Amino acid sequence: MQPIMSKSDAADLVVAARIRKGLTWAAIAESLGAPLVWTTAALLGQHPMTAEQAAAVCALLDLDETVAESLRLQPSRGADPAQLADPTIYRLVEAVSVYGPALKALIHEEFGDGIMSAINFNIDIARRPHPDGDRVVITLDGKFLDYRW
Amino acid sequence: MQPIMSKSDAADLVVAARIRKGLTWAAIAESLGAPLVWTTAALLGQHPMTAEQAAAVCALLDLDETVAESLRLQPSRGADPAQLADPTIYRLVEAVSVYGPALKALIHEEFGDGIMSAINFNIDIARRPHPDGDRVVITLDGKFLDYRW
Amino acid sequence: MQPIMSKSDAADLVVAARIRKGLTWAAIAESLGAPLVWTTAALLGQHPMTAEQAAAVCALLDLDETVAESLRLQPSRGADPAQLADPTIYRLVEAVSVYGPALKALIHEEFGDGIMSAINFNIDIARRPHPDGDRVVITLDGKFLDYRW
Amino acid sequence: MQPIMSKSDAADLVVAARIRKGLTWAAIAESLGAPLVWTTAALLGQHPMTAEQAAAVCALLDLDETVAESLRLQPSRGADPAQLADPTIYRLVEAVSVYGPALKALIHEEFGDGIMSAINFNIDIARRPHPDGDRVVITLDGKFLDYRW
Amino acid sequence: MQPIMSKSDAADLVVAARIRKGLTWAAIAESLGAPLVWTTAALLGQHPMTAEQAAAVCALLDLDETVAESLRLQPSRGADPAQLADPTIYRLVEAVSVYGPALKALIHEEFGDGIMSAINFNIDIARRPHPDGDRVVITLDGKFLDYRW
Amino acid sequence: MQPIMSKSDAADLVVAARIRKGLTWAAIAESLGAPLVWTTAALLGQHPMTAEQAAAVCALLDLDETVAESLRLQPSRGADPAQLADPTIYRLVEAVSVYGPALKALIHEEFGDGIMSAINFNIDIARRPHPDGDRVVITLDGKFLDYRW
Amino acid sequence: MQPIMSKSDAADLVVAARIRKGLTWAAIAESLGAPLVWTTAALLGQHPMTAEQAAAVCALLDLDETVAESLRLQPSRGADPAQLADPTIYRLVEAVSVYGPALKALIHEEFGDGIMSAINFNIDIARRPHPDGDRVVITLDGKFLDYRW
Amino acid sequence: MQPIMSKSDAADLVVAARIRKGLTWAAIAESLGAPLVWTTAALLGQHPMTAEQAAAVCALLDLDETVAESLRLQPSRGADPAQLADPTIYRLVEAVSVYGPALKALIHEEFGDGIMSAINFNIDIARRPHPDGDRVVITLDGKFLDYRW
Amino acid sequence: MQPIMSKSDAADLVVAARIRKGLTWAAIAESLGAPLVWTTAALLGQHPMTAEQAAAVCALLDLDETVAESLRLQPSRGADPAQLADPTIYRLVEAVSVYGPALKALIHEEFGDGIMSAINFNIDIARRPHPDGDRVVITLDGKFLDYRW
Amino acid sequence: MQPIMSKSDAADLVVAARIRKGLTWAAIAESLGAPLVWTTAALLGQHPMTAEQAAAVCALLDLDETVAESLRLQPSRGADPAQLADPTIYRLVEAVSVYGPALKALIHEEFGDGIMSAINFNIDIARRPHPDGDRVVITLDGKFLDYRW
Repeated sequence: MQPIMSKSDAADLVVAARIRKGLTWAAIAESLGAPLVWTTAALLGQHPMTAEQAAAVCALLDLDETVAESLRLQPSRGADPAQLADPTIYRLVEAVSVYGPALKALIHEEFGDGIMSAINFNIDIARRPHPDGDRVVITLDGKFLDYRW
Repeated sequence: MQPIMSKSDAADLVVAARIRKGLTWAAIAESLGAPLVWTTAALLGQHPMTAEQAAAVCALLDLDETVAESLRLQPSRGADPAQLADPTIYRLVEAVSVYGPALKALIHEEFGDGIMSAINFNIDIARRPHPDGDRVVITLDGKFLDYRW
Repeated sequence: MQPIMSKSDAADLVVAARIRKGLTWAAIAESLGAPLVWTTAALLGQHPMTAEQAAAVCALLDLDETVAESLRLQPSRGADPAQLADPTIYRLVEAVSVYGPALKALIHEEFGDGIMSAINFNIDIARRPHPDGDRVVITLDGKFLDYRW
Repeated sequence: MQPIMSKSDAADLVVAARIRKGLTWAAIAESLGAPLVWTTAALLGQHPMTAEQAAAVCALLDLDETVAESLRLQPSRGADPAQLADPTIYRLVEAVSVYGPALKALIHEEFGDGIMSAINFNIDIARRPHPDGDRVVITLDGKFLDYRW
Repeated sequence: MQPIMSKSDAADLVVAARIRKGLTWAAIAESLGAPLVWTTAALLGQHPMTAEQAAAVCALLDLDETVAESLRLQPSRGADPAQLADPTIYRLVEAVSVYGPALKALIHEEFGDGIMSAINFNIDIARRPHPDGDRVVITLDGKFLDYRW
Repeated sequence: MQPIMSKSDAADLVVAARIRKGLTWAAIAESLGAPLVWTTAALLGQHPMTAEQAAAVCALLDLDETVAESLRLQPSRGADPAQLADPTIYRLVEAVSVYGPALKALIHEEFGDGIMSAINFNIDIARRPHPDGDRVVITLDGKFLDYRW
Repeated sequence: MQPIMSKSDAADLVVAARIRKGLTWAAIAESLGAPLVWTTAALLGQHPMTAEQAAAVCALLDLDETVAESLRLQPSRGADPAQLADPTIYRLVEAVSVYGPALKALIHEEFGDGIMSAINFNIDIARRPHPDGDRVVITLDGKFLDYRW
Repeated sequence: MQPIMSKSDAADLVVAARIRKGLTWAAIAESLGAPLVWTTAALLGQHPMTAEQAAAVCALLDLDETVAESLRLQPSRGADPAQLADPTIYRLVEAVSVYGPALKALIHEEFGDGIMSAINFNIDIARRPHPDGDRVVITLDGKFLDYRW
Repeated sequence: MQPIMSKSDAADLVVAARIRKGLTWAAIAESLGAPLVWTTAALLGQHPMTAEQAAAVCALLDLDETVAESLRLQPSRGADPAQLADPTIYRLVEAVSVYGPALKALIHEEFGDGIMSAINFNIDIARRPHPDGDRVVITLDGKFLDYRW
Repeated sequence: MQPIMSKSDAADLVVAARIRKGLTWAAIAESLGAPLVWTTAALLGQHPMTAEQAAAVCALLDLDETVAESLRLQPSRGADPAQLADPTIYRLVEAVSVYGPALKALIHEEFGDGIMSAINFNIDIARRPHPDGDRVVITLDGKFLDYRW
């Protein structure tokens, strides 16, 4: 009996195969018919895949069943804190630190006492052309949940 | 000589005046002709205001010049870490932890090696009606900056 | 213009008045017609009260309008980490540390990939008589939210 | 001489066997005649099993004696702090942070100065159907212990 | 309405009065008829006193009712982590770090799976004369509690 | 040339052999003619053993010279902080947090300015029968050292 | 007897006076005949000033002798860690994290085993015009110190 | 399928080959036609190399394609915090702590509200001869980015 | 009843009086007939003074009885961790980090298993003239304590 | 190509060979003609050795060239924080915490604003016989560096 491959080892193999085959995350997501950020996050270990999705990804990337088994596994979610210091990710951390209290105040003003769900939630990323340099546009879209006793 | 009132004390007075006068953040932003999240963040101490903006806010809220002086001050930005544990803000922290590595991978795929600026950057919040419950939509929009030696 | 009294100062005054008047938390909750844990948490600064609730509590405890104003305020939720080391609270922390992974596995088995909401959520406490010593029974009851993209 | 397999390695093998055999935690607990949360926690490394329990689990899951030996071992209890950031577990952490001080106040009011034991303690989880979406109900039941010199 | 004096402020006043009056902790404990370590810990803010005890201490030390009221209050227990670095206290921390795992192993061997209660618990300190220099003897005495589901 | 086996690996082998041979810590200590807590701590890696002690333990447990060599090694003392969260050990941590400042005050009162040594120090554990449930009695006995310039 | 005003309070008064009088840091440094970064750092509490410098600054800014006395005081150097999260300062932290190991390797290659002194050290800042946007140029200049036994 | 070699393992091999071949970082940078600090940082894992650069380095150092593949990989940037305590790197950390707030004030004074980019950024190191001992001169040169909504 | 002035407030007054009167630490120590480092540490709050010492210092510095009372108080020893980042103190921290394990090995080699006491301990500082620049010489002198059960 | 053996692995082999050959640190230092603490620290990984030193040590200890190569490597200096909790090392940490601020004050009084270098620095350890028990004497000797702009 072997333990199931860890999500992190599976992600390393997915990344290696993706690069060696010259596939983009977008191409993988499209071949699965799944949203782009969701697919990327799932392959990096943050969401479980269905058996069909895992099999399709492994077929596309020539990875074997041990990877697929790992991709189906329920994850323990969240990044290693050290990863959050990478500058590309840290800018998101900084935006939450600078604008978090303002967003909280505005959610309460518009919706009442509650939160934007991070579960009933999706996130998208897009490129917005701009004469001064193109822009990254990230959209967070979550159901409002009110404190309801 | 008195020191300049801290941004945090000024924010407490702005909040008190706003509530006692029954004004919304949206109404204050509108009266300033400034973006909603920017205005809220500035009044909570995360951006300096121009002399005109600070004077206009203080006139609207019946706050005196000591508050206006503080609102013009250059801030030391960022939330107290304890604030980030508030559930409404924490959901944003959690989204960055779960999706940060995927967003990093997709920024690199689409734009190359670089970051979404958190300085040449704006953020907006909107309500999106939905039959299963309205949704909070937060849009981060920052210029892509490539690592350029 | 005075800032609004902090939730923490208001809680200190509520506690002082409650003890000096010989009132129980249960009696306050009953007089409000509100759930026991909710009422206690709200008075300790974790939930905003309606104007009616705040006025009723302040009338009952002979506290003035500055306290009521604070009780209506939207809180920044969460305990000071130092409080969590108090033995009575720490036993709850320990239970989450020992049983958290098992509860996660069982939520996923019974409901699928998702969480128990801590927002659409209530909590109750009861005394269960037992011949070997009475027992504290705490019930957490939260809506299941599935990861839904 | 080999060291005893770590509880964490044993848990990985139990999880792998459970998934590959299509068994639920509930089915394992039932076959052991042991409570559901206790059984799951024990197999994840938080409680020692008796020789009979360990043998029965390993027979059911086709795991060998090295796993059984590990399951009998006295554990060092508690989750890795990183696990507590998983959203499904974190909601429990958040509930303790928001409601912990209120629960402490109510335990003291009802029982006197003391704690709910986390040792003479059991915990259960159930599904409560609800028209707005089924609910997770977690019950903590621990003996009250008074500070007794 | 004034808030109740904090346990920490009350302890500062007790310490000041004790020193100025030239009383020992032992004399205070004796006058209360209460155990020495319990009394000292209670006056430093770690246990609530009965009304009789608080009144007796305040009479002995010429402290007023505001101190007595604070001494009766239910505490939030535990030392500030900075205090634990004081060398006299740190030696206890070090002993737990060096001998904690051995004590755990021996508790399990002698009593089975469980803990020494820190609630149904008392602690005493004594001087043991010794030709090479007198010794501090600290005795921890707590009820064994077995993990009992 | 092989490095010396780590104290932690040696402890894992000692634990495995002890369990498989059905020996208690008490029996090992008795066979060594050494104190119980000292022996257990030494075998768990907190004290160096003499060549004779290490040889005797390895003979008793059928462990080879590589283990004996490790047992003789001078240790780097102290538990991994994660171990201190185990409930059985944590109760000792909690007792130090609750009673540490009181013990410090009483050491100063009885002995003057100084500490209880954690080096010229021994510790014992005993079972004290009690009608309400037997008790764990832990005795710390250390030489008083006064601050002496 | 009053304690000497803290460096932090003195800095707050310097900042307030500087802004109200419309003076730049550069003008203050020039009037002192001292380097720009040194002067700014000293006034923010990181270097002691001579009696002449402190008197000159206080005359320029209409601050009284209590401020001058504080400016002469030997500082406890270093920023509050929370300040380092301010985005303008954090970019320097990030540069050290990304390039620190490379700079260490190059110092060793060019100079041998040692360090760039942070004491026999100066730092300057300049504006470099650039068609794509002006640039901030910060120069660190410290004596090489070799490990010399 | 093998995962891609980690940046850290690749750096270890680059360092080993560099030393064994007696090559300097400067010689490698020159052979690549790339800036010195950039090249060193890239080989230590902080920047991705182009295929040509990676191939050239591996040819120069007799390293195989698995290293080259790793050098092309997009990094997760930033030093391990433990590395920052090395004295040679720590002096940079200290300089940021002592001078960071002054540099922030001067950036705002000269450029307005904004930051020195750490992305559109380069860094250089030079030796400056000096009669009292040669000096390390480090120049940070980053584009000013203003907070622009 | 007033609480006893904190050691930290007393130290601030001692520092202020010392500077305003133009006295050195050495002169104060000499007037007390006490060692230099001991006296300085005691006045900064790390050792209790005898009544005679406290009175003599206060007479010398024109400080009143409230300061003397504080100087006699038993301290809670240890620096605030933030102070340890001051460069002058940090060099000592760094020396312990770099040489601590070597010193431990050499203490064990020369003396056996044990420690250098930090209680039966004194410390001195001296200036050693040197043609390349004078040197600071700090001598730590503590009794060896062997682990003795 | 193999990476260079880590300093930590090399230290483990040096320690193993030293013990098995019955050599003292002092004998190794003497055979190298190098200072005792320097030699011990270098072999534990805190200083690079010259080729001659590394070869001589490896000849003396029968270690092969892979160890010598590692001993020549430039280290990343500093102890693992966990090591600092070992009681023998911790007493040094404690002495810095208790006496650090006093030493800082006395360095400034005697030398002016600056530090004791930890680079142009040596450290020695000696045994001082004493009728009450021999003493460990540690001497730190570092060049004074003044803040010099």
